[in-house]
Amino acid sequence: MRQDPTTKEWVIIARDRAQRPHELVRKHNGPSLPEYSPTCPFCPGNEHMTPPEILSYKDPGTGCWRVRVFANKYPALSPVGSTTRREEEGFFRSMDGVGMHEIIVETPLHDERLARMDVRDIEHVLQAYRERYNALSAVDFVRAIVIFKNHGPSAGTSLMHSHSQLVATPVIPKMMRIRQNVAADYFDSIGRCLYHDLIEHERELGTRILRETERFVVFHPFASKQPFETWIVPKSRQASFGSVTDRDLTQLAGLLQMTLGALDKGLNNPDYNYIIHSAPTGEEDMKYFLWHLRIIPRVATMAGFEMGSGIRINPAIPEDTAQFIRACLKHCGRNL
Amino acid sequence: MRQDPTTKEWVIIARDRAQRPHELVRKHNGPSLPEYSPTCPFCPGNEHMTPPEILSYKDPGTGCWRVRVFANKYPALSPVGSTTRREEEGFFRSMDGVGMHEIIVETPLHDERLARMDVRDIEHVLQAYRERYNALSAVDFVRAIVIFKNHGPSAGTSLMHSHSQLVATPVIPKMMRIRQNVAADYFDSIGRCLYHDLIEHERELGTRILRETERFVVFHPFASKQPFETWIVPKSRQASFGSVTDRDLTQLAGLLQMTLGALDKGLNNPDYNYIIHSAPTGEEDMKYFLWHLRIIPRVATMAGFEMGSGIRINPAIPEDTAQFIRACLKHCGRNL
Repeated sequence: MRQDPTTKEWVIIARDRAQRPHELVRKHNGPSLPEYSPTCPFCPGNEHMTPPEILSYKDPGTGCWRVRVFANKYPALSPVGSTTRREEEGFFRSMDGVGMHEIIVETPLHDERLARMDVRDIEHVLQAYRERYNALSAVDFVRAIVIFKNHGPSAGTSLMHSHSQLVATPVIPKMMRIRQNVAADYFDSIGRCLYHDLIEHERELGTRILRETERFVVFHPFASKQPFETWIVPKSRQASFGSVTDRDLTQLAGLLQMTLGALDKGLNNPDYNYIIHSAPTGEEDMKYFLWHLRIIPRVATMAGFEMGSGIRINPAIPEDTAQFIRACLKHCGRNL
Repeated sequence: MRQDPTTKEWVIIARDRAQRPHELVRKHNGPSLPEYSPTCPFCPGNEHMTPPEILSYKDPGTGCWRVRVFANKYPALSPVGSTTRREEEGFFRSMDGVGMHEIIVETPLHDERLARMDVRDIEHVLQAYRERYNALSAVDFVRAIVIFKNHGPSAGTSLMHSHSQLVATPVIPKMMRIRQNVAADYFDSIGRCLYHDLIEHERELGTRILRETERFVVFHPFASKQPFETWIVPKSRQASFGSVTDRDLTQLAGLLQMTLGALDKGLNNPDYNYIIHSAPTGEEDMKYFLWHLRIIPRVATMAGFEMGSGIRINPAIPEDTAQFIRACLKHCGRNL
């Protein structure tokens, strides 16, 4: 059992039921897609099928959009209402579902996927993330912004055209508060940033590192909750994704392309989620937290034990999966 | 948004993307199974394919077992090792994966399922849970016991023959500690048991209640995290499932049959998990916690936002799903 130093959760790394990395390779290919779909609301020419455009980046040559942002037509939260808590019967607590839910279409091509996109195009996607993050973090009631991507049906996608999402919430998610509290306790006791120490120790060991650059470390964490879970953590001390620099974004785009590319080749286009973890908005000056990006391939099913206890059973050993991906990286010939 | 009073987590009840209960009915039937499978380690006659029997209840007439318990052949935790924490590089914390992982085969019939079983047979399964719970809670290093069932592939089953599992852990799962702390805070402030007040308020409102008996309340909770999430909570003040009485077990068997039966008919045999939540072992005398059973049909996929924030988006309204199941119960003619 290994403890995640960022949440204090214990994880079971199940050596006895361990699956070798190659056993987790996806066996069946998904349906192949056309480059354009007349019924897809995310395809160029179908812009009238979406809510009004909030942001787009256009190709200076053709004038067509490369990245396009608009509100989710079926939002989980919407910007109408109040954050005042209500008490029902003096016991149950509720509030309006006030917030924002946006879609970031990553490419005009219906059949493209992030793992195979040009690094410049990935950089545009990340720029759109940052621009929308900063616009929404200025909204008074917003307490947290979660940027995420669902790739493939078992990761929760309903539309196949490659896109990311952003949800701005009026509350601080419990898991975010737990991570913040653990980092604050560490800072109060040790006097250093937990995430900084974490990447220092991962670098020293080296066995779970996929790649290190001037500004980032990419690794499979010590207490990975799922096979091939990958963290991309900046070395700079930024609690908020909103304050990421242009130069960091360029490097992040390269690392994301590299990591998603290796997973795509190594595991045969697995379904995956990624999430950008940031500090709560309005608490972004804290010195003991680092924003970071986590990629979670959906190769294992969460069953009753995990749902009941919160303890995850990871059937793959992070040192093995890191070695497997390093071999893919060598083999793919991808280099930064 | 609604707050779960037992964890303080906020849940988004997405009215805008709400699915009507009947939209969540499973469309395709699974493969039909034979009554006996020669390759199934859980079928009678194949007992040599499992680790040694720990417990079984036999039919007094035929002498054949009706319920059979043995260690999981591929355990997540095993009873060898030490609970001493190790520090790696003075930073990462790990320990031996010491614990127990048992399988409870619920029926000798390969094609049977709990939702259709005789209430007496379900009672035997619950008796086996209690007997193993009490045996394992006496083991010195055991800190928590999680009893759970995975029904169907998307709930994490690999073997189709109907069975439950029990995992005894050497640590207190983080989620269990959070529930305990929330209940302790409530007790310290209000002076009453949170779970007792919770069922009182659910009873007063009535809109989410499926059934109430002398000893139990069955309902879809106010802040359901998933569509058709169902809690069965005792009215008696027991923190531990180990201290459940015979009479409670008899009623629980009836309610489980009723609830699983209604889900089975109403949603066409959905995949589901259930979990028995109990207090940590060794802390079972606490006056402010109630053991309870939660059923979670796997009709919604957890996507990136939920994984990143811990905030669940529930696309169904608990009052609607409760009404749907009450109609099923009437229609099925099931009554206690």
